[in-house]
Amino acid sequence: MTLPRILTRYRAQVKEGLLKSLKGKSLLYAILRYGVGLEDERGTPAKNMGKLLRPSLVLFTAEELGGEIEEALPGAVALELIHNFSLIHDDIQDCDETRRGKQTVWSLYGVAQAINAGDLMQALAVAQAVRAGEEAVAALVDATVEMIEGQGLDLAFEGKEVKVDSYLQMIDKKTGALIRCAFRLGGLFAGAQRDVIEGLVEMGRELGRAFQIRDDLLGVWGNREITGKPQGSDIRRRKKSLPVAIALACASGEEQALLREVYAKEEIADNDVKRVITVMEHLDVCKTGEEQVTHYLKCATHQLAELPFSEQGREDLQELIDYLARREK
Amino acid sequence: MTLPRILTRYRAQVKEGLLKSLKGKSLLYAILRYGVGLEDERGTPAKNMGKLLRPSLVLFTAEELGGEIEEALPGAVALELIHNFSLIHDDIQDCDETRRGKQTVWSLYGVAQAINAGDLMQALAVAQAVRAGEEAVAALVDATVEMIEGQGLDLAFEGKEVKVDSYLQMIDKKTGALIRCAFRLGGLFAGAQRDVIEGLVEMGRELGRAFQIRDDLLGVWGNREITGKPQGSDIRRRKKSLPVAIALACASGEEQALLREVYAKEEIADNDVKRVITVMEHLDVCKTGEEQVTHYLKCATHQLAELPFSEQGREDLQELIDYLARREK
Repeated sequence: MTLPRILTRYRAQVKEGLLKSLKGKSLLYAILRYGVGLEDERGTPAKNMGKLLRPSLVLFTAEELGGEIEEALPGAVALELIHNFSLIHDDIQDCDETRRGKQTVWSLYGVAQAINAGDLMQALAVAQAVRAGEEAVAALVDATVEMIEGQGLDLAFEGKEVKVDSYLQMIDKKTGALIRCAFRLGGLFAGAQRDVIEGLVEMGRELGRAFQIRDDLLGVWGNREITGKPQGSDIRRRKKSLPVAIALACASGEEQALLREVYAKEEIADNDVKRVITVMEHLDVCKTGEEQVTHYLKCATHQLAELPFSEQGREDLQELIDYLARREK
Repeated sequence: MTLPRILTRYRAQVKEGLLKSLKGKSLLYAILRYGVGLEDERGTPAKNMGKLLRPSLVLFTAEELGGEIEEALPGAVALELIHNFSLIHDDIQDCDETRRGKQTVWSLYGVAQAINAGDLMQALAVAQAVRAGEEAVAALVDATVEMIEGQGLDLAFEGKEVKVDSYLQMIDKKTGALIRCAFRLGGLFAGAQRDVIEGLVEMGRELGRAFQIRDDLLGVWGNREITGKPQGSDIRRRKKSLPVAIALACASGEEQALLREVYAKEEIADNDVKRVITVMEHLDVCKTGEEQVTHYLKCATHQLAELPFSEQGREDLQELIDYLARREK
């Protein structure tokens, strides 16, 4: 699947910015470069950085609204560092051993150094944001607080049945906060009016939901070769993602009992994963989820219509929206 | 032992500031209030906050050099939050189950939420610093980066023999960074001249070393009733603190072999702790350590003489210095 222009155009600059911000000599900085995918475990340059969605959105929005890329870059890099710090710590919390097809930081360097590496990345993100000015620091730290609160909700979901509403509240914080922040930072760096920034943030809200729900669908039905994660991995990890919330809301007595039985287990076997997927497929959970993705992306398109973007900018963002609906990783 | 005036005078204001910055309603904020010692595990107000050395130094220095307490308070609170976030994560990394005589955050709420709680506390610290202005954020984040680099060195010491020099480099970062930052922030909030701030930071460097070395001595010879930690706890945890570095540097063949044998073990038994303490006492390690504390505190007193403090301020800081030499917790 071809990447949309927004995700390719700024890649080199973001990579450069990340390299600069993580150029320290000690082991800890090598761990961080491995964590963001700039280097492999031997310190050899690698190309494993993920989509760079958030910094690309900062730079695209800033540029589209008349700002300068160079001024927006530190804020964009800061946001990507916050995202990556959260991944390092999430992987410890979820005991995930693989990300982007490679060993996670904790599984390679141990839990203690991984906690420390994530802490450093959070601090380095703020150091970058300081270069972007006071408003950028404030926006970044607000989003960071909200993201961590969302992660707290997610962790609190363990061992509980989660309703679709609570799930949406959680992802609005955990995933949505940084995506909204990307648009906010872009608007700030372009010196946009308050109502424009509000419109951008609203669009970010819809995109954030669509993005996370698509992620959840990939966590069950994604292709291992493409996602870098085993199929059904979210089920194996008993993750309370949208597919489970939908399945529990739609399931009849017998199927509901099966879901509860599996999710009550300490360890979920391959066969259990298959049984859960069978129930989900019988309930058309994937289709319901895809409809939700389509719904939120439509809302984003509506918001986009209100924004003072150029024709080309509108096309670029629409291309990204279409990509987010279909993405396979 | 009576607390020095600097550690009692600002306590109520710092407590108020901490309460305000951690007033959120969700579980995560309750965990943070427990972590800093504002509440017990049932959410009942508690008095278990530790010495509040760092924020007290910020406020004392600011006031002494003509600044306003109210303006300096957010920065002081921010620094205490950074210190406490590091304690929450350190306790996970060191598998410590007790701090200040109570269960550590991870041992009460689990590792996943403890990682998340520490992350939130780091972000909330920055949010406080934002209220104190751009220079404060920059000073705080630089100190945070240095502290975490120091923690990285400390973790890297595991399984290695540590020389006194490397040990001092490590504590200059891990402990020294925040203490130097306390003086720097105090100077900034008072609008002090650059050379005064440099003098303050130099004094902080000496105090930081004395403080950490005293801490290390307490980690071996401290009284459990007073420190809240079992005696010899740093030996049991195989922590590469100054007493071990001194002992290894001074020990003869047989004693060195004993130290190496014990520190190579996976688990250190009560009897091993006793054997190590016997060797250390034979080598007069405690006295050597105390001499170092005295040395660095003397250097701090020399620095103090150069600073434009009032007579009363000089007396107050000297009282603190004398306390740091003798403190038992």
